[in-house]
Amino acid sequence: MNYQDFFRSELDALRADGNYRDFAELERHRGAFPSATCHNGPGEVTIWCSNDYLGMGQHPKVLEAMHEALDRTGAGAGGTRNISGTTHDHVLLEAELADLHGKEDALLFTSGYVSNWAALGTLASRIPNCVVLSDALNHASMIEGIRHSRAQKMLWKHNDLEDLEAKLASLPLEQPKLIAFESVYSMDGDISPIKEICDLADKYGAMTYLDEVHAVGLYGPRGGGIAEREGLMDRLTVIEGTLGKAFGVVGGYIAASAELCDFVRSFASGFIFTTALPPAVAAGAAASIRHLKQSNVERESQQANVAEVRARLDAMGLPHIENPSHIIPVMVGDPMKCKFISDVLLKEHGIYIQPINYPTVPKGTERLRITPSPVHSAEDIDRLVSALESLWTQCELARMPMAAQ
Amino acid sequence: MNYQDFFRSELDALRADGNYRDFAELERHRGAFPSATCHNGPGEVTIWCSNDYLGMGQHPKVLEAMHEALDRTGAGAGGTRNISGTTHDHVLLEAELADLHGKEDALLFTSGYVSNWAALGTLASRIPNCVVLSDALNHASMIEGIRHSRAQKMLWKHNDLEDLEAKLASLPLEQPKLIAFESVYSMDGDISPIKEICDLADKYGAMTYLDEVHAVGLYGPRGGGIAEREGLMDRLTVIEGTLGKAFGVVGGYIAASAELCDFVRSFASGFIFTTALPPAVAAGAAASIRHLKQSNVERESQQANVAEVRARLDAMGLPHIENPSHIIPVMVGDPMKCKFISDVLLKEHGIYIQPINYPTVPKGTERLRITPSPVHSAEDIDRLVSALESLWTQCELARMPMAAQ
Ligand SMILES: Cc1ncc(COP(=O)(O)O)c(C=O)c1O
Ligand SMILES: Cc1ncc(COP(=O)(O)O)c(C=O)c1O
Repeated sequence: MNYQDFFRSELDALRADGNYRDFAELERHRGAFPSATCHNGPGEVTIWCSNDYLGMGQHPKVLEAMHEALDRTGAGAGGTRNISGTTHDHVLLEAELADLHGKEDALLFTSGYVSNWAALGTLASRIPNCVVLSDALNHASMIEGIRHSRAQKMLWKHNDLEDLEAKLASLPLEQPKLIAFESVYSMDGDISPIKEICDLADKYGAMTYLDEVHAVGLYGPRGGGIAEREGLMDRLTVIEGTLGKAFGVVGGYIAASAELCDFVRSFASGFIFTTALPPAVAAGAAASIRHLKQSNVERESQQANVAEVRARLDAMGLPHIENPSHIIPVMVGDPMKCKFISDVLLKEHGIYIQPINYPTVPKGTERLRITPSPVHSAEDIDRLVSALESLWTQCELARMPMAAQ
Repeated sequence: MNYQDFFRSELDALRADGNYRDFAELERHRGAFPSATCHNGPGEVTIWCSNDYLGMGQHPKVLEAMHEALDRTGAGAGGTRNISGTTHDHVLLEAELADLHGKEDALLFTSGYVSNWAALGTLASRIPNCVVLSDALNHASMIEGIRHSRAQKMLWKHNDLEDLEAKLASLPLEQPKLIAFESVYSMDGDISPIKEICDLADKYGAMTYLDEVHAVGLYGPRGGGIAEREGLMDRLTVIEGTLGKAFGVVGGYIAASAELCDFVRSFASGFIFTTALPPAVAAGAAASIRHLKQSNVERESQQANVAEVRARLDAMGLPHIENPSHIIPVMVGDPMKCKFISDVLLKEHGIYIQPINYPTVPKGTERLRITPSPVHSAEDIDRLVSALESLWTQCELARMPMAAQ
């Protein structure tokens, strides 16, 4: 077996399909986000596809907390959580997170990916005979966690309550069940019917596991997510979130009962056998959460910018998925065109929007995923919209609004 | 099913076995490591179990690089590597890592755990019909990656070349094979026969995957690990390492051929679907690596302190595993006693050494794992040794040196 030849031919196949990924090499400038230098591109660009949704990664309070923690305590944690790596800053952050979601406790992981993978993997494999009912569009990290558990898995149609109920009803009432789903689905921007899912969970004796990765910081009066906005936090068994998107830093977590957190803490390989996050990361994330608990300006001006971009796209008939969230998926439907448009936007207009191709979205639904933030100016929006306008003409792309995918 | 009762009873079972873990809540003080405040303990303590092996987590160059990157570019990366999250600092760090290991390229992950899990999981599942030959004492992250791949797995006896060869010889020569092993095994501190393993790999057409997590920064003239020290880096297909131990920050990586890195980059779920590390983390890690490429003082004084602690333990007949590395496992062999000694060390002597119990080590081999660093003083060593001495008497523990486990 020639391993190098094998790698090369697999990479060539990606290229032939238009799915090979080139990463833009960016350097943001403190305080000047959404502009950045693109080192392997045209120099100065405006970022329109960041998941630093509120620009909190540039917030003075966050940066100050990180500087302070570096000065106070140094760089890394120096160990796994069990072996010298639990710092005061981790404990404070976990308390902040438990409070954010109205839960008894919270547990930090190195990323949202690891929190899903480790928590779902541990719950589903350790609860005897557990069945996981997983929304068909769940994120890769949830899918991998469930797969890893080797528990029985039942996929239910995306956001389809009837299908979920049929699956639940097909199982013995006393069999342990875990319903895993998201609030805001990040690629289409649609939102799940959390209350109705919790009602079904109660009726059939299931636990609920809600990924709020694309909602924490962004929805609810204190940024607790969609479940907070709808007054449903206490009905969820587990709320999972990230510190790397709206909170602007990095890391992931679950919030749940004290026993559930302690159980995952005690048994999850992905929690136990890994170096803890640096205390400065924990301190920065805590500062971000604290700020967004009492400030609504960021959320409000984000929503205003989202509405503005949508209205402008509609006025030109550019096809984007309608949804009730902050995510604007402009549909291209072809990997080569999607990459071409993205390349031209970058090179000729200084606008950076990464093409979203397979495997992040299904083939045929390739898109430009636009994430307006409070730090985009009216002028940024003008430039975005007129660049898209001219490219749509140039590429002879369809101009019918898509009501849904 | 009462889920809460289930969690409670599983936690009670851990407690009954002495395997329930209490985390010490620490706060290190910049520049004053190994001392720290233990918030849920006696106040000031000396840490003797950190994996910040060289104290680089407190090094001025590392802290300065992190401050500088925070000031220059902000807190988080703001996206996955593909979607706006690749920063200039990531690219520079990957180049630094490729250079460290003499490889064409390197690929960063959020942790060493994720690098093992994702790289092994991807290689073993994607290379058609691949068999993984895994050392029996490999780290949890490697085991989980191999398990996740669902590839065929053959365990070979720890560091046993005969057994490895027998397993290799039992497979068809043309079948793809991957030998996965570590250089320094972190719980016993023994070192694998890398050269002989590479010889077998060549003979039987296998790839080699070496985890140098407990060796990078610590061995070799530039801190490239055991493989660098022995002049073997070019013989390994993949070298994997962490940025969270000797380098003092957080993160993980692989270094390998350009094609292999590109392959993992393009197909590994755990690489693709997760927020990139903050640029400040990448900058701090790069500064640490750069420093340890040209400075031997830290490595030399660490080795001197390790030798001193070993000699003092020997003089008192305290049983520790002999090994050629920087890790000193003092054997207790009982989870309750191990925890008791650790508790008394903390409370009465201000010495923090976390008990290492199951599942980190096999039952019956519970231990205190001591990691002397260059920043421990002669006085710190005196206090450690006399505290252990008095506790060994108090607990009536055996005093025969153990040649091996
Ligand atoms: C729905 C969802 N869950 C989890 C994650 C992983 O979170 P993190 O980026 O913190 O690893 C992501 C994206 O990265 C996501 O989109
Ligand atoms: C051998 C080995 N590999 C990998 C890891 C994981 O590295 P990290 O702590 O960076 O996740 C560890 C310890 O944590 C380890 O001991």
